[in-house]
Amino acid sequence: MPCIRTDLAMEAFENTDGSGIPGVRVSHWDADGVDITEVVVTDNEAAQQLDKPKGSYLTLECPLLLERDPDARLAMAALLAEELARLIPEGDGYAPVLVVGLGNRAITPDSLGPGVVDRTLVTRHILAGPRTGSPMNSVCAVAPGVLGITGIESMDIVEALAKAVQPRAIVCVDSLAARDSRRIGCTIQLTDTGIQPGAGVGNHRKALTEQSVGAPVISVGMPTVVYAATLARDAFEWLSAREDGGEDHEAALSDMERTLLGADIGEMIVTPREIDAIVQDAAGIIASGINRALQPALSDSEIAAMMN
Amino acid sequence: MPCIRTDLAMEAFENTDGSGIPGVRVSHWDADGVDITEVVVTDNEAAQQLDKPKGSYLTLECPLLLERDPDARLAMAALLAEELARLIPEGDGYAPVLVVGLGNRAITPDSLGPGVVDRTLVTRHILAGPRTGSPMNSVCAVAPGVLGITGIESMDIVEALAKAVQPRAIVCVDSLAARDSRRIGCTIQLTDTGIQPGAGVGNHRKALTEQSVGAPVISVGMPTVVYAATLARDAFEWLSAREDGGEDHEAALSDMERTLLGADIGEMIVTPREIDAIVQDAAGIIASGINRALQPALSDSEIAAMMN
Amino acid sequence: MPCIRTDLAMEAFENTDGSGIPGVRVSHWDADGVDITEVVVTDNEAAQQLDKPKGSYLTLECPLLLERDPDARLAMAALLAEELARLIPEGDGYAPVLVVGLGNRAITPDSLGPGVVDRTLVTRHILAGPRTGSPMNSVCAVAPGVLGITGIESMDIVEALAKAVQPRAIVCVDSLAARDSRRIGCTIQLTDTGIQPGAGVGNHRKALTEQSVGAPVISVGMPTVVYAATLARDAFEWLSAREDGGEDHEAALSDMERTLLGADIGEMIVTPREIDAIVQDAAGIIASGINRALQPALSDSEIAAMMN
Amino acid sequence: MPCIRTDLAMEAFENTDGSGIPGVRVSHWDADGVDITEVVVTDNEAAQQLDKPKGSYLTLECPLLLERDPDARLAMAALLAEELARLIPEGDGYAPVLVVGLGNRAITPDSLGPGVVDRTLVTRHILAGPRTGSPMNSVCAVAPGVLGITGIESMDIVEALAKAVQPRAIVCVDSLAARDSRRIGCTIQLTDTGIQPGAGVGNHRKALTEQSVGAPVISVGMPTVVYAATLARDAFEWLSAREDGGEDHEAALSDMERTLLGADIGEMIVTPREIDAIVQDAAGIIASGINRALQPALSDSEIAAMMN
Repeated sequence: MPCIRTDLAMEAFENTDGSGIPGVRVSHWDADGVDITEVVVTDNEAAQQLDKPKGSYLTLECPLLLERDPDARLAMAALLAEELARLIPEGDGYAPVLVVGLGNRAITPDSLGPGVVDRTLVTRHILAGPRTGSPMNSVCAVAPGVLGITGIESMDIVEALAKAVQPRAIVCVDSLAARDSRRIGCTIQLTDTGIQPGAGVGNHRKALTEQSVGAPVISVGMPTVVYAATLARDAFEWLSAREDGGEDHEAALSDMERTLLGADIGEMIVTPREIDAIVQDAAGIIASGINRALQPALSDSEIAAMMN
Repeated sequence: MPCIRTDLAMEAFENTDGSGIPGVRVSHWDADGVDITEVVVTDNEAAQQLDKPKGSYLTLECPLLLERDPDARLAMAALLAEELARLIPEGDGYAPVLVVGLGNRAITPDSLGPGVVDRTLVTRHILAGPRTGSPMNSVCAVAPGVLGITGIESMDIVEALAKAVQPRAIVCVDSLAARDSRRIGCTIQLTDTGIQPGAGVGNHRKALTEQSVGAPVISVGMPTVVYAATLARDAFEWLSAREDGGEDHEAALSDMERTLLGADIGEMIVTPREIDAIVQDAAGIIASGINRALQPALSDSEIAAMMN
Repeated sequence: MPCIRTDLAMEAFENTDGSGIPGVRVSHWDADGVDITEVVVTDNEAAQQLDKPKGSYLTLECPLLLERDPDARLAMAALLAEELARLIPEGDGYAPVLVVGLGNRAITPDSLGPGVVDRTLVTRHILAGPRTGSPMNSVCAVAPGVLGITGIESMDIVEALAKAVQPRAIVCVDSLAARDSRRIGCTIQLTDTGIQPGAGVGNHRKALTEQSVGAPVISVGMPTVVYAATLARDAFEWLSAREDGGEDHEAALSDMERTLLGADIGEMIVTPREIDAIVQDAAGIIASGINRALQPALSDSEIAAMMN
Repeated sequence: MPCIRTDLAMEAFENTDGSGIPGVRVSHWDADGVDITEVVVTDNEAAQQLDKPKGSYLTLECPLLLERDPDARLAMAALLAEELARLIPEGDGYAPVLVVGLGNRAITPDSLGPGVVDRTLVTRHILAGPRTGSPMNSVCAVAPGVLGITGIESMDIVEALAKAVQPRAIVCVDSLAARDSRRIGCTIQLTDTGIQPGAGVGNHRKALTEQSVGAPVISVGMPTVVYAATLARDAFEWLSAREDGGEDHEAALSDMERTLLGADIGEMIVTPREIDAIVQDAAGIIASGINRALQPALSDSEIAAMMN
């Protein structure tokens, strides 16, 4: 199987010859104009083949988001809220949910996570005193990469803070790489598998999982880039399919990549020029979904009023 | 001739079959480890063929910049200062030089211009009173795209300010698109032709030339992106050269672009993931070159001390 | 009369012994929980005495703003919109209104104007083509001080842009200095007199008036600081009133200022520690008032949807 | 003793009637144009009287800093480096020094700490692998308040990170309140006592001390504000000294504060209008001192080259 890099489970799957893979269940449906795909990876062999850990991957797609359609935005936020609420364990009202925005604010396509943290309603400091029967749930949020080059890995910062605040769940937001550039900015993936090393635009070096932090880790991501190598490889595949080349594809492909992109191909990304506006928009939609999921007792306008 | 998009005159030239184009003079030389290419476009037909206006294009290349080699940085800044000083007309000491940083600060690969403006030594407000025999030249600087969505085109802002301050020259800094991704971050182009519509990462809609603003316009640029269409097209060319396809290349190519990138191909860019650091570095080098060229009576450390 | 520095006409007036000043008409009323004071300066002598040019000054006060009361915020925005709409001349639909945010974004109490510009709905670039019967009015906006030290005075930038876009009116937003610290963050002043030299936290050196830019200039401001000298002077006045000092007050006062604050007293400001949140809040309220006044055909949610 | 609020031990001392306080040793000297005052608080009673914990407080003062005198800047950075190096325990080469920048970047006079963190040479991530005989010491840095409203107290974030990275020492940088506005921007205080609740412009609610984090905590601070109540109180004292009031000063003072400043007096600050430039400058000087102290094997230009 060609080693196309994608953080979307549904693209890892499309990538095969089309027939079903044992150990993978795929379902499709539609709700309020949003295409939903659920990929469940149930055994280790399939996990290895797709390079995605065992677990459930839900993808919400809606190309109208790129046109900033108000109904599409509301539908995405509402669906995300609903599915997210399902994945977060009930709390006793004291343990907070920790929202983590991964990524580097200074690199536009990597700045989705910090953007969502900016728009998350944080309540833990208000609820810290004696319990006053507030209808709000306790939420804290952190964007570890915004600290700049701290000399401390983002995941180590999250682990240290999770030890300190003992969250009942972690919701982790990150920018993703897709295979198909048409998914940039209009696709949200929601998983219960945490973050894996090598995933995301920032290519995390360490995992963030229930094992590493002691609380369920739900990740929410949106593709903001395609790797240039993916694009070049797809160009090659497309051409090879037209000609019926019987030759050694992998060698020719490596040759082409070296010629076209030089040694640093792995670090070249393809992204829309209007990526800044796309990321801002997406951050608003995802934060709205998270705020609704975490504060079911508050209306949208109450949430807005509390956030300045 | 294939319509590869590049803002570098030297790449428009490489793009031909290699033999000389009438109306174009090309020279190469080396100084302090920097490769210098001068392309002079002398007639209108050549200008049209290369899609570059008549004038002189000087390119300084030094791959060591990407490794942040201190000697390479100093050499680039010094050469830029020297060549820039040659292009700026002598003043009477009162008319300022206006440094314009084009581009949008919020879009990393388009933020070179604003970054240079931040690092430019601005003196016009100090020298505004009665002339005190200061050794400094009058310099003002503006980054029109930093105003956000003002509803006023960047070029209209520059024209309006040029009318107000009557500069003896405008030095315009912009992020460029290259054909070859290996030129990103290590190549500076210096021209006396101003800015053309469609050029730059931000794709200016209006020209900025001596005709439009009434003062010579010198542009300084560095490539920060390659268009995705360029990359795909190069992949195609590379493959076509291997097979000896006698077929209709342009049709097949358009077909591939549509399939791989969708309708919005023109807006997809390829850029290094570390583009943030590359742009910051480049802004420092270019500003250093500009400050030296505009303030020949000040030492580097005097300039630094005046800039906080 | 003691030379207390305040940008609020109503405080210049309170400052006198309380009896009416010839050439000044003052009215008070209340609407939706907002205290409204109108000061009309009708002759030149009064203008000189109060150090405020002839014209009309409307002050909206509502201390509940500091508690972020939602009703108070809506009431202030609605009243501001209504009064502002009254001051802006009818247009032919083509000439834009130019919103100018004075002040320096990097100095918190001086950053109100740029904050309002960020939240203003800008439409001129959308409406630039052939008239399509849009219900929107043409608006452009600029924050000249955001350019940093450009070497060009903010007022010169505004004049140059006004020449270029030929606005039917300029709405100018600025941070003000008050005499009474309790007015910080909860008082909006609206005038038809433009901006005077020396006014505002940034102490503009040039005027911005109909004479200087060729269009009516309406200014909207909110106090964000009190000058330290004002505070010290008030302390002195308060104490002098208690003792019945018959001595030379002005000399003693200068003596005290020198002792307490040193030579740089004029540049020391008094501001609430939470000024950052206060300015953000105020920028939202003022921008909401401006957007409603300039786009009467759009609802609040349509405006929000167009602004990301 | 009047309860003037100051974070400078030398001002708490000046505040008394001038004779020596038992349990406090004060020394003065001069080096390279810098006035140095050392206050050592040796017993608990003195600590309580001055409201400063037992320990050593070194103050470096140089008014020329406000004129940006290059020699003064170098002298301050060099003296700070020397004194700081004396306070940091020798390490085994592995345990990092953790630099903590307290304060909120969005509030100018509270942004000194984050500004210093931005300029600190961070090396822990480079030195993380097997020891390669590098001459560099391991340093990490964090600005917990830059995370925005995270719902987690800054001190809890520092404690959590200290547990994770096990530093050999913590150097904590904060904006301070002074009694005398002339000390703003030109005075650095260095102590071995950590951070106390209520100290700093941000008024920390929790302590940061060797007890709370398990490593020595050295704090470095510079005054950026005077509390408005301090100024008003000083005005009162000054006037009372002139008249020979035998009356109840405290009651009259409270009365005046209520009249002049309202209920929120504790939160009003006095600061120079050019505080933005002052804080930036100070951050550069303090970071230079820290970098020299922590990296004695590197020259200034090597440090600069490693920091972009």
